[in-house]
Amino acid sequence: MRKIEGDQVLMRIFIGESDMWEHRSLYMSLLELFRSKSLAGATVLKGIAGFGPDSIIHTASLFRLSPDLPIIIEIVDTEERLQTILPEIDRRMSGGLITMEKVRVVRYERTDR
Amino acid sequence: MRKIEGDQVLMRIFIGESDMWEHRSLYMSLLELFRSKSLAGATVLKGIAGFGPDSIIHTASLFRLSPDLPIIIEIVDTEERLQTILPEIDRRMSGGLITMEKVRVVRYERTDR
Amino acid sequence: MRKIEGDQVLMRIFIGESDMWEHRSLYMSLLELFRSKSLAGATVLKGIAGFGPDSIIHTASLFRLSPDLPIIIEIVDTEERLQTILPEIDRRMSGGLITMEKVRVVRYERTDR
Repeated sequence: MRKIEGDQVLMRIFIGESDMWEHRSLYMSLLELFRSKSLAGATVLKGIAGFGPDSIIHTASLFRLSPDLPIIIEIVDTEERLQTILPEIDRRMSGGLITMEKVRVVRYERTDR
Repeated sequence: MRKIEGDQVLMRIFIGESDMWEHRSLYMSLLELFRSKSLAGATVLKGIAGFGPDSIIHTASLFRLSPDLPIIIEIVDTEERLQTILPEIDRRMSGGLITMEKVRVVRYERTDR
Repeated sequence: MRKIEGDQVLMRIFIGESDMWEHRSLYMSLLELFRSKSLAGATVLKGIAGFGPDSIIHTASLFRLSPDLPIIIEIVDTEERLQTILPEIDRRMSGGLITMEKVRVVRYERTDR
């Protein structure tokens, strides 16, 4: 297994749950892209409310299911790998936000188990 | 549409789901504040468990719905805009945590679409 | 109440919902560890999809409940406190990722209320 440690980058992709790419959900499409590129891992979080550049507030409620709740996809890997994959991510997105920030990886799987 | 790019700030606001402001939920109140100030976007995440300064662990379960699960609101914008709005956020909160950290915005909506 | 402010550290622990420690869920075990050590607070987020070092994509759906959705635990405290508790966290984990990053605490509870 590839190891990542020390100074790395956290990339966070903010999109909508209803965003699509080639007839399927964008976040699942991105997740499979990241797996196919052997990124170290990815986590998809779903918000309960939010707004983006269109300024419409989307919320989840028991009585009214919003068609477009916010999704955040998080990946931690080397700056180089993330920069390489960035154009492919960008190409699939029609809106949204991507941020990158420095993080220190203090643990990634044990090699002695 | 206003563009944000390059070095910006991620503000994260940690509150409770049951926190109120003027007879409504604090997180919805903050969301509308941010929209009214034309912030670039906001995302509300709801945790499944947590504890804060009061040290009581709140959890979600099928059998016992906690009245106060943790909420995180995330906004990405310029340091200046976030500093300007900070006193208004602070005024509405009676507890909780706010953090700010540097992020690099590598994509915010496409201008050529 | 202990105060934290200014430059602090955000620790984020990425594990699986089904990870166990001594016959109970790892994330609840960690939450109680953090409370017993009087950390300033902790938030547990649950993802809707993800993959880790094993490269299997786990997803939540109405029809198929995944046994192992991703969990992120977030704690903000001093570098020193987090470094002290790190070996105890590490000892309980059999997989997963821990990152640390610098954050600026601009608010942590009010002392004048």
